Amino acid sequence: MTSKSKLTPVELKLATSLLNHGPIVLVSSAHGGKQNVMTAAWAMPLDFVPPKVAVVIGRESFTRELMEASGAFVLSIPAKAIADKVLWAGSHSGREVDKFSESGLVALPASKVSAPLIDGCVACLECKVIAEPHNQQQYDLFFGEVVAAWADPRVFSDGQWQFNDDSLRTIHYTSQGNFFAIGEPFRVDDK
Amino acid sequence: MTSKSKLTPVELKLATSLLNHGPIVLVSSAHGGKQNVMTAAWAMPLDFVPPKVAVVIGRESFTRELMEASGAFVLSIPAKAIADKVLWAGSHSGREVDKFSESGLVALPASKVSAPLIDGCVACLECKVIAEPHNQQQYDLFFGEVVAAWADPRVFSDGQWQFNDDSLRTIHYTSQGNFFAIGEPFRVDDK
Repeated sequence: MTSKSKLTPVELKLATSLLNHGPIVLVSSAHGGKQNVMTAAWAMPLDFVPPKVAVVIGRESFTRELMEASGAFVLSIPAKAIADKVLWAGSHSGREVDKFSESGLVALPASKVSAPLIDGCVACLECKVIAEPHNQQQYDLFFGEVVAAWADPRVFSDGQWQFNDDSLRTIHYTSQGNFFAIGEPFRVDDK
Repeated sequence: MTSKSKLTPVELKLATSLLNHGPIVLVSSAHGGKQNVMTAAWAMPLDFVPPKVAVVIGRESFTRELMEASGAFVLSIPAKAIADKVLWAGSHSGREVDKFSESGLVALPASKVSAPLIDGCVACLECKVIAEPHNQQQYDLFFGEVVAAWADPRVFSDGQWQFNDDSLRTIHYTSQGNFFAIGEPFRVDDK
């Protein structure tokens, strides 16, 4: 299992590399003494400099309410080892249960935003909401500027992912509890 | 190598499943007798019903010019077998070369839009641009409504991906010519 002590800072210019290959993410937020976490498969980079991300967050979500109140969120990229907790967090509402105590997911303090990092994740992106009310209301789409980034150096170093431990692979969701782990790397030389 | 004859229609309600796990895509468009194709790592579903997608397309792109003129595009999900052509299409401009004749990528007619499907891809989403000028100008972000979807039944059937042939795996880009193939499936039962 990963733990906070294994996350090390990533230069902001490399932040989008953490999300580029399409893993599922956990979205966390906190405001007024409350915090929550949810699962989102629809997240992607939006820009390199400054690094920005886009993520779809349903309008009923408690995470979204805390995001909108605080103006911040964290995208955390879970390792395969916590896939059961990721699925659980995606199918329960923080309006009804304390998702941290119930899911076994552990919140850890971030460096620049109120939203927590999530233990057991191989990377985390601390983000400030870029207010775009039309996108938020019409499409449930949120933009964030990445203000700090973290990764587990066992799997991300020198700007590249390298998965030698199967339990630390990123996971890619399809539907109904079905995931893929990211697979084998290969390189293509441009001609 | 895949070919057109292997693509079969996918119900629109399953269209977002094709993109949900974060593969790199080819974006193609056509207008006024010209057509082009480019590579985009930043694409994701945006909604289920009707199915919508979001994709980032740089402002210098010739594909974007044809998209904006025609109001349509196709997102095609390439198989590992054509990764070299995918990288090539991502590092050359259709303003300077005929990317189809130079890359070896083969355009095939779509059913509902002017933009072509791409041979060697395991899925294709035919899309009509949802005009959002602010997003297009400010973020290079385009939305599309999926009006037809296709997949190779060797790897996608009953709404699920299943990769038995390594050359047909979807590919997930990091940077500088480095990819991952999608890996092994696993299932989590919700508690």
